[in-house]
Amino acid sequence: MIKISVFYPYKDGAAFDIDYYVNRHMPMVRDTIGAACKGIAVEYGVSGGAPGSHPPYVAMGHILLESAQALETSFAPHLPKFLADIPNYTAIEPVIQVSEVKLQ
Amino acid sequence: MIKISVFYPYKDGAAFDIDYYVNRHMPMVRDTIGAACKGIAVEYGVSGGAPGSHPPYVAMGHILLESAQALETSFAPHLPKFLADIPNYTAIEPVIQVSEVKLQ
Repeated sequence: MIKISVFYPYKDGAAFDIDYYVNRHMPMVRDTIGAACKGIAVEYGVSGGAPGSHPPYVAMGHILLESAQALETSFAPHLPKFLADIPNYTAIEPVIQVSEVKLQ
Repeated sequence: MIKISVFYPYKDGAAFDIDYYVNRHMPMVRDTIGAACKGIAVEYGVSGGAPGSHPPYVAMGHILLESAQALETSFAPHLPKFLADIPNYTAIEPVIQVSEVKLQ
């Protein structure tokens, strides 16, 4: 299983509409990918390792795909559509990671 | 639900024993936390957003807890034990994030 993780770095004063992200953006991503999408997940940053510290990321979104093949055929072609929706919830530029799920 | 994410930044040439991490470290963390641990997960970095680029993180580990209360009572007291095991699989210093799970 392949996981695409999208990290939004925490920035003092930078807005992030978590409700839009959870209820509109990520479901749109899932529905656009279709059957190749094996799951979506969202986390909202609370803190870093020290209580009360800023989290490294204000939010993180994850997309599960069955294979690297699906990344190419079912995700990459829609990337412009996904990116075009970002200004609707934040001005933060995300960091992207593609991972192999080893344990879940 | 609360998620503790442990990110190991990718560094050229830095070793990371993913088998030890998946099969020994994370199960030890889960067993030490006990019933308060609602799940563990591990991802191994493949690439960044651009195919063939280095992933931001060589590996990521996640621990699910039912509440912020469990973080204090069932996780924090064991942190020295968890940290003491890191040299058995890497010399990379991890970045830690505590998040609220909004969608899973």
